[in-house]
This record gives sequence, C-alpha cells and structure tokens, in this order.
Amino acid sequence: MTKVAIMGASGYAALELIKILLRNPEVEIVALTSRQTDAPHINEIHPCLEGRLDLPCEALTPAQISERADFAFCALPHVASMEVIPDLLADGCRVVDLSADYRLNDPAIYEKWYHHVHTDPTRLGSTVYGLPELWAEKIPPADLIANPGCYTSTSILGLAPLLANNLIEPTGIIIDAKSGVSGAGRNPKLATLYSECNESITAYGVGTHRHTPEIDEVLSTVSGKEVQVVFTPHLTPMNRGILATMYPRLTSEVNRDEILNVYRSFYAGKPFVRVIDRIPVTKDVAGTNYCDISVQFSGDQLIVFSALDNLIKGAAGVAVQNFNLMAGYSETTGLII
Amino acid sequence: MTKVAIMGASGYAALELIKILLRNPEVEIVALTSRQTDAPHINEIHPCLEGRLDLPCEALTPAQISERADFAFCALPHVASMEVIPDLLADGCRVVDLSADYRLNDPAIYEKWYHHVHTDPTRLGSTVYGLPELWAEKIPPADLIANPGCYTSTSILGLAPLLANNLIEPTGIIIDAKSGVSGAGRNPKLATLYSECNESITAYGVGTHRHTPEIDEVLSTVSGKEVQVVFTPHLTPMNRGILATMYPRLTSEVNRDEILNVYRSFYAGKPFVRVIDRIPVTKDVAGTNYCDISVQFSGDQLIVFSALDNLIKGAAGVAVQNFNLMAGYSETTGLII
Amino acid sequence: MTKVAIMGASGYAALELIKILLRNPEVEIVALTSRQTDAPHINEIHPCLEGRLDLPCEALTPAQISERADFAFCALPHVASMEVIPDLLADGCRVVDLSADYRLNDPAIYEKWYHHVHTDPTRLGSTVYGLPELWAEKIPPADLIANPGCYTSTSILGLAPLLANNLIEPTGIIIDAKSGVSGAGRNPKLATLYSECNESITAYGVGTHRHTPEIDEVLSTVSGKEVQVVFTPHLTPMNRGILATMYPRLTSEVNRDEILNVYRSFYAGKPFVRVIDRIPVTKDVAGTNYCDISVQFSGDQLIVFSALDNLIKGAAGVAVQNFNLMAGYSETTGLII
Amino acid sequence: MTKVAIMGASGYAALELIKILLRNPEVEIVALTSRQTDAPHINEIHPCLEGRLDLPCEALTPAQISERADFAFCALPHVASMEVIPDLLADGCRVVDLSADYRLNDPAIYEKWYHHVHTDPTRLGSTVYGLPELWAEKIPPADLIANPGCYTSTSILGLAPLLANNLIEPTGIIIDAKSGVSGAGRNPKLATLYSECNESITAYGVGTHRHTPEIDEVLSTVSGKEVQVVFTPHLTPMNRGILATMYPRLTSEVNRDEILNVYRSFYAGKPFVRVIDRIPVTKDVAGTNYCDISVQFSGDQLIVFSALDNLIKGAAGVAVQNFNLMAGYSETTGLII
Repeated sequence: MTKVAIMGASGYAALELIKILLRNPEVEIVALTSRQTDAPHINEIHPCLEGRLDLPCEALTPAQISERADFAFCALPHVASMEVIPDLLADGCRVVDLSADYRLNDPAIYEKWYHHVHTDPTRLGSTVYGLPELWAEKIPPADLIANPGCYTSTSILGLAPLLANNLIEPTGIIIDAKSGVSGAGRNPKLATLYSECNESITAYGVGTHRHTPEIDEVLSTVSGKEVQVVFTPHLTPMNRGILATMYPRLTSEVNRDEILNVYRSFYAGKPFVRVIDRIPVTKDVAGTNYCDISVQFSGDQLIVFSALDNLIKGAAGVAVQNFNLMAGYSETTGLII
Repeated sequence: MTKVAIMGASGYAALELIKILLRNPEVEIVALTSRQTDAPHINEIHPCLEGRLDLPCEALTPAQISERADFAFCALPHVASMEVIPDLLADGCRVVDLSADYRLNDPAIYEKWYHHVHTDPTRLGSTVYGLPELWAEKIPPADLIANPGCYTSTSILGLAPLLANNLIEPTGIIIDAKSGVSGAGRNPKLATLYSECNESITAYGVGTHRHTPEIDEVLSTVSGKEVQVVFTPHLTPMNRGILATMYPRLTSEVNRDEILNVYRSFYAGKPFVRVIDRIPVTKDVAGTNYCDISVQFSGDQLIVFSALDNLIKGAAGVAVQNFNLMAGYSETTGLII
Repeated sequence: MTKVAIMGASGYAALELIKILLRNPEVEIVALTSRQTDAPHINEIHPCLEGRLDLPCEALTPAQISERADFAFCALPHVASMEVIPDLLADGCRVVDLSADYRLNDPAIYEKWYHHVHTDPTRLGSTVYGLPELWAEKIPPADLIANPGCYTSTSILGLAPLLANNLIEPTGIIIDAKSGVSGAGRNPKLATLYSECNESITAYGVGTHRHTPEIDEVLSTVSGKEVQVVFTPHLTPMNRGILATMYPRLTSEVNRDEILNVYRSFYAGKPFVRVIDRIPVTKDVAGTNYCDISVQFSGDQLIVFSALDNLIKGAAGVAVQNFNLMAGYSETTGLII
Repeated sequence: MTKVAIMGASGYAALELIKILLRNPEVEIVALTSRQTDAPHINEIHPCLEGRLDLPCEALTPAQISERADFAFCALPHVASMEVIPDLLADGCRVVDLSADYRLNDPAIYEKWYHHVHTDPTRLGSTVYGLPELWAEKIPPADLIANPGCYTSTSILGLAPLLANNLIEPTGIIIDAKSGVSGAGRNPKLATLYSECNESITAYGVGTHRHTPEIDEVLSTVSGKEVQVVFTPHLTPMNRGILATMYPRLTSEVNRDEILNVYRSFYAGKPFVRVIDRIPVTKDVAGTNYCDISVQFSGDQLIVFSALDNLIKGAAGVAVQNFNLMAGYSETTGLII
C-alpha cells in the first residue's frame, strides 16, 4: 500500500488520475492540493467524485505533502512544478511529474519553448522520461519521472519502431494530429468555449506547439540520429482522444506486412500498445490506457496512425503505469485492460 | 435605406444580427461598438465576417452613435443598456434593446430579479414588448422596443393561444425548456467550456431564471388573469436551439384538432410561426426565424411543444422583425423564409 | 467463479456488459451469441475489445449455451428473448434478461404495448423485477431477473421514496426525460444518424413509449395505489446519459430538507444511489453505475431530478448488480465505484 | 426567371440546394424527384421546409422533367446520373450534375474507381468541370456542368495557385482532410450513426477514396504536369465543414508573404475565395459559399489550409454558382455573401 498525494487536483488529467487511483487496491490517496486557499472539498471541484473520495483540496507546502505521502503526482502547470519538486525529492517523496518541466534534456531548449529560465537545470538530462514502452527498465529505480505529453506519446509510439529500425528518414516527418478539447485544459478561455469548438475543426500552434521539441528529442534518442518532425495539431470537437496521422518517408522498399511485424515485435509484451490491422479510431481507446497503432500505404506513401485517450494513456494512465513500475506493482494495476 | 448601429457587437446574438442585416437591402450598418478601447476590426472579433463588413468596433458614446445612425440595436448586457438608451432616444435614435432592461413593467420586479435599481423606471410599463405575433400594431410607432428573451418567446408563443382562449389554467403551467449553449453568452466561464457541456445535460436556474417574471408578465397581459409558470431551463449539448415542452392543465375537454385549430387561427398571417402536425425538432428551425409549435396528448395531459433558434427568432431575428416593422419595411425583409 | 454467456452481443448495452464483466474477477465469459451465421470474432463487431476478449460471436441454441455457461445475460430484442429463456431456465441456466419480455405482470398489457402475444405468460407476475434498490432480498434466490428499462430505472428511483411515503399524488406525475442517442440502439436508422441527431433536440414517443406501463406498474407496487405517469422522452445530442426532470404534486406541505432526508433514509446503504444537494448532471454519472438524485422547489412545485448512464445503471451495470446478488458476490464487484 | 428541377431531392446536398434556390429571386422550383413511388411531399422528407416549398417529390422521367423545367440539378448517386442526363440534354434541359459521373476525363479511370462501365463515355473529356474559380469563362456556354466533389474543391482551391505558378512539386502532395459527417450521405449506415461518430475521429478510404483521381486530374490540367496527391480523408464529429491540411514540397525558396500574394492575385475578383491571414476554421465558413485559404510554415515545410462547407461551397453552393453563370445571372445571386 502506497500513500499518494495529487498536486493540482482541479484539472481534467488530475480527475482521471483520481479515478484510476481509486481503482488501484495498492493506493491510498492521502492529500490533494490546489492553489485555492479555502480548501474546497474535492467533490465541489469534481462533483462526479461525490461519495467516492472524502478529501479537501488544500494549499499544502512540499514539506506538508511529503509528511503525509510517499509518492506525489504533480499535475501542476509547467514552472509551478519545478518550484515544488526539488523540495519533495529532498524530503524523500518520489514524484511523477505530469507537467513539461522535466521532459527536455537541455535548459536552453526549455527556455526557448517555454519562455522561462529553468530553475532546476541540473536534473534536466538525467530525469527519466516516462514512456514505459521505450525504456521500462529505467523507471523502477527512478525518484522522478517526467510524464510525457499527450501528443508526444501518440507520436512517439507511432514512429519509434520505424526509427529504431532505420526504416524511415529522420527529418521532415509530417505529424498531422487531431485532439479532443480536454487537452486544452480546464481554465475558461474563449477558444475552448462550447459554442466556439462545437461543429468546427481548425489547426493551431503550427510550428510553435511545445510538444514539438519533446517529440524531436525522444525520437532522436530512439533513432540515434537527429529527428525533426513537422507537427500540426488540430482542435477537434470531442472531449477525449488524439489521432495522429503521420507521413514518414521510407528509406527502402518494405511492404505493409513487414512493417506491421516490426511494430509487433517492438511492442511484444507491452500490455498497452495494440498493433491492429484496422485504422485506429479514437472511440476505441477512449477511457482506456491503450494506444492503437496501424499503418497503411497510399500509393508509395506510408501512413502511420496512432490513437490514444489524451487524458489516460496521454496523461493520467501512463502516470499510473509509471507509478506501478516505480512502486513495484504490476504495470497494469488499476488500469482498465 | 436606414443607417443602423449595433452596440455590444462581440456576442453571439450580435453576430447573427450583423449577418441578417447584411442580407437586408434596406440597411446600412454604420457603427459597431464594444467596450474594448483599441477599436478592433469586427473581423478580429468575428472572423467569419472577413470580407463581409469593414468596420471597427469602437467605444462610442450615445451622442456619437446617434450622430451616425438613425437606429440602434442594443446588444449590451442588462444595466449597461439602460445607461445609454435614454440618451440615444433623447437624440432621436430609435432603439431595439436586446437586453432585459425594458422588458418588465415594474421597477420593483426588475430589482428583485436583476439585483439592480432601475435607473430609467418611468419607461417601464410603457415600453413596447417586441413580440410581433402578439401586438404587431404597437411596434411601428414605437421609438424603443424591448426585444424578448429567448426562452420567453419560445414559451409565450407556445402558450398565448391557449391562454387568450381560456383553454388552460393560468397557474402552475410547467415549462421544461432545453437550450443550446450559445444562450449562455460568449464570456469564458467554466460552466460553458466545451468539455463541461459536451456529452452532458443538466437543469440550472431552477426557480431563479430571469426569464420567469417576463413570461409571467406577458402571459398575464395576454390572459387577463395572473399567470404563474414553473420554468425549468436545461443546458443541452448543442450550439443553437430551444425546445420548450409545456404541460398546462386544460380547463375543459377539447381534442387535439380543436386545439391545433385555435393555434392556426391565432397565428394566421404570421409569417414566422408554423403550427405543425409533427413534434417540433430544433434543427428544423436552426438558422431561421421560425417558431415551430405543435401539441400532443399523453393520456389526458396536453403537452405543448415550441421550438426556435435562440439566436435568431429568440434574439437577432425578432429584433430585425421589430426593426422592419418600426422602419416601415416588410416584416420579413432580410430574414430567411 | 461463474461461467457466463452473453446473448445478443452486438449492441451497445452488450458491449458495456462485456467491459464490466471483464473487470469482474468472479466471472469467465464463455460464450457470445448473435444471429450472424458466420460467427464473427467479437473484435470485428466491437473493435475496442481487441486484445481483451478472444471469442467468436456464434449462433448458439439455448442447449448449447447452457452446456457451456451457468449464467446467461440476454441482450436480445423483446420477443427474441422469450423464445429462448424458457429453454435456458429448463436447462438450469440462470438468466438476467435485459429485454422487456418479463418486466410486466400482465400478458394483456404486454400485448397492448408490444403488439405481440406473450409466449411464456405464466412467468409474468412471478418474475422478479431487478431493481436492487427496491427489493434486493428477492433477487438472490431468483433464476430469472427482468432487468429494468433505462428510462424506467431513472424515473422509478427518483419517485419511489416519495410514493412509498405517500408524499405525492399517484397520478398525473409528469416525467420529462432526456436521453442520449445510444438508448435508441445500434441498428442503422435515419432517425439516429449523426447528422440527424447532432445539434438538435426533440421529443418522441409521446404517450406511446413502452417504458410507460413499466414505470406505472412498478410504482403502483411501491405505492400501493394505482400510479399513472405522463412520460415524455426526448432524444438529446449525446451518446450517454438520461436526465429525468419530474414534476409530482405534493400531498402535504413539506420542505426540501425533509424531502432530501426521506430520500437519504430510503437509499441508506444502497451503494449506487447518491442523494445529492446539487442538480444532477449526466456527465457526473456517465461511465458509472450511479444514479444521482436531488430535488428543488420552483415556487410551490416540487421538482425531482434523477440522472444515470442509460447503458450502465440503466442496463449493463444494473444487470451485473443483479448477477452479483444472484451469484452471491458483493453487489459492487466489477462496477466502478 | 428560370424554371428548375431538382433530381434526387432527399439528400443533404439537395436540401441545401432547395434552401439556396428559395432565396434566389431568379428561380422557380417546378419539380422535385426521388425514387419513392408514393410521391411524398418534400416536407415529409425535409420537415424544415414546411411552409417554404409546396411540391411533391415525384418519380419523373427525363422527358417529364424537361417538359416542366429549363434547368435540372442532378443530385442522384453516380451511375443513376448518367442514366438520365443524356435524355435531359437531348430534350434541351441544361444540367448541373452533382454526382461524379461526368467529372473525370477518361472512361477507364472512371471504371477503375467506380467499378461501373461508363454508359455515356463520349461526354467525358468534353464536359466542363464546374469550378468557377479556375475557368469561369467555360461555364456560361455549357449545357452540362460536372459539379466538383467536396474534398476535391477544398483541395484544388488550396493547391491550384501553387501549381499554376510552379511553386511546388507536382507529386507526393500530402492532403490530410477532415470532413463533417453529412458528407457521408443520408442513407442509414452503421458507420454514420450518431453513437458511432460522436466523440470519435478516424481516417477512412486511405488510398481508395474516389475524390483522389478527380483531384489529380484537375490539378494536372492546372499544372501542365502530372500531379499525384496522397489523399487521406478523416471522419470528424461535426455535421458540416471540411478542413484540408496540405503539405506540398516547395520547388524554390519563397516566403509566406510572397505565397499569400500569389494566392491573392490568383483569386482576385473571385467573390467566394477568401485568402486570409489566420488559419481557417470550419465554423467560419459553415452555412456560406466561402472557401477560406491560408498558409503557414512549420520550419521549412509549407502547410496550406483550405476550409469550406462541404454541403455549400462543396456541393449545393457551387452548383448554384455554376447555374448563375450558365443562366446569365450574377454569380452570387441567392448565395449568402
């Protein structure tokens, strides 16, 4: 049994985290934090939790958190995360950080994309990037895991087998990604109002989306070459789900069956990646921790499709997967499978 | 040709107003206002207007407005409306007010429901309520029209023929109304975020919704008796449309055909009310100025259905209908029919 | 461990049933049936089950089913259910029937509403109606449970405490219900196409919906008087969820707190009914087996709100709740709580 | 005044056609056809037309149509179109064909993609392709216009200026297109049920969608070289709209402003193409005949965005644009602008 805290409990990913952890028999949720000073009950913030979790959402210091909990999920925004994580770690509390603060290796790249000086730069480069399908062996001993971005996981899981096997060119890989609106967070903004998003689709953040350097960096590690992607996210009128449609250039002639076999052996034994014959559909992974992957040819052009639930496999689900590995539980505990 | 101004041009109803007026050959839009001091082009606020209207959205005084325009549509929030309308009228500018400020007869009722002291109380009671299907003859000579609320029109149009003919009890009339999210306005709020509204329905404002006294007051005038309704609005996951399902108690035995005939003769010659045989469906009136009405029996209980587009017949469309009557144009000019 | 079969596995409720049973450690799914003769793999019918359940969907006889399974969930359409259930029971297979075939007490009422002569009339009147919140003690010994309709459960759970305590008049109770589209089933029909349902709301089946006699009958049992409701269902643009807004007439003066206390004691110890202070919202129960209930006054009119997920608490979830009770497992096993 | 007939009046594009033509003062709709033998009133098929058009939907022969009408819009499926169009033309009735039957130049290509032998092959190659932005001068004298496909127009309008100016490579152009569900038609199918499409996105028809050869052929004509695109359509949970995100390879270095200027001069004087600075959003063109186009760079990769309403500019709107040009009316008559 592990005592866990969730920091930044008011957002959508935190809600999913709570729901998953409530199903995890190895976990006791002992603290929830938000920056609201009146410590509202979590049921006031997420009414669906009525009768399921009886905790206030407090403004706690890192010291107070590590006193109560052995483990913290940090669902704070970037910058806010790196303000508290060093203290948590110093107090012996292990952390899965769902923010972007520890995902990149280079403080300069962080500063370029996030417009903030990194205040804990020595941990960059040594923090384990929490994608268990790529390096599950690094996760158990870690004290801090940088939980991947949602678009990032979708893209990386779709491209890693091809890059690891030198089947595609490392540059100019087009990633045309479609995400549900929950990925944009729960802070009220004009752009995410119902009447603005419903019955509409558009692209945004072209050339500037912050998941781009993350994808490039992790895939470069996988590939051994410098990977550079063209990443175009689209806001899609649905709550949940990401579909990435990816157009890499093959380095040699290889057919669909051969490629699917590469995927199948790359993900052999990985419980949450399904290499399927059909084109993935986001509703088939919604509410689950699965990432569905397939490929098709359109003439000579290979197209890779990757789909997951942005709040589960793209955030809270993989966080629990990381937690399970860190804490020594079965990787799938509490996750619908 | 009439020169018109639109005050408070950034909201959803104002956008529909602009679109309708652009199709009205008798109208020139000469001024748009918002409280933003940097006078953004209207295309920045409503990108769909690109190439269709070349005007900034200025912070204009009533004097500046009435200098340019003969007619103003006031789409400001309540309170803001009554701060400018007296000056506009004094300057000879005729006004259709889409806010609630001039809809009620009694300043005390206004204060009770809107929590503000009315600053122009002498006009209450004498301002014409702009529901052309009820008293079209009062509208042409008016200088100020109080444009009805969206739920209000839906409910009143559905119940007025029955009350005018003493067919139903005036009290305890249940109005169970379902509205699209655009009715909640364009200011970013948690409750109207896409991920909060999508895939969900709920009631709100039970016993407290401000359209309640408006419905009661107008229907009391129609009925000659004091009408009191039970009004329960619901937030429905769609952009547009209101369906009111109403449960009045009949005063005598009367069958469905007789009732439909009462409606047909009440609305004879009214171009925007369709008394239909089927149950109204909101998509059939979306984007139009129609209100579709029908009735059914469930056992002995009469059920009245009324549907309209909350932004058109519930706001901008009826505003233009009122304008057309005030300005002496055909009632249907510019309105899709 | 219980071996179960699911008959009629291709629909939406059956899919939810499979998902719930896969989480139930006491269950092994041993057979799936559909009327398709080519025995497609269940993954072809429900692609989201890829890697989760490896069974074909066969055209099995009752004898073949009871040879493999101790327990059958029957998700066939009405009429088809009563054609197979007598044989299953004769072979010792216990059954939860999700169809309407065994819900009503009187074959004449069945024939009137379903336009079919009941072929197993002796079981009507003695079959246990599977609403565990009302008569949990009758369920464990039963061999056949009639699983309630979705609108029915929503309405009954909202009204039973008031009727059991004689707080409301038994007749003329208005139930204005709003359901997601999945309730209309998975057979392709014009009325349930995306482009027909999206961005629209309407009522349907006014005075003729088949859940009406079911509500009347069960509530009459609860009340001891003949209950007669006015039931108006609405098709709402969402996949999941039912909200019933109910307008009963109080028999005496009683305030909101007193009424909420009646509900709280009626449902004390019932794990899946939450009596809440807020107005229920369907998204708060979506994906769960909860029914959320609350009440409000609008003037003197009491309004009862009841919300549940039509496919879970309204179908597959309550079916598993019944199964758990019949099989002697904890009522909540496998159900998200 | 022109007397027009609409053949195949029961679909979504036909409904939009009727609505647009009702606003066109130069048009009288004199006949509607469907294959239903009982000649239902058009209001039974499209209830939103109640009170707006009083015509039955008859099973008429080409001879009966050309007797009543000078002009026919053919909204029949492919194959059905080429069965009636030769007779209509022989009788002097001019035709805009919304099906695919006359869009391609080569009967062999038609047969390959549509799996039918073309029965009127001599007209292929000489029929004018009705994209007024490309060759408006060919349309007025034509007796038969092949109205473009919806994905086709979106893609061609976005790429034509670049190909006409040799700015991009003609092959391997990636078109990642997202369409609303109405594009899939009004025949009930599992894949377009509300509960299947809502809350989900997926690709379909990869490498096999029939708009592919149409795009290739028209763009080859524009380019003078053989164009070959990689076309990947996606089914998006919304009724209306297409967004095409296109990734061509530049032939030389050119910046964004230079490219936008190429578009602006290519579309100078074209009332329905808006070259905009922002990324197009489908809701900004929904309900209009506009196609919004813009470009962005993501690193060195040029991305072209093109958005339109699949039922208007992608079908019924451009059909009326073609009709207006053929009949000698202003190109914009009846079209919202």
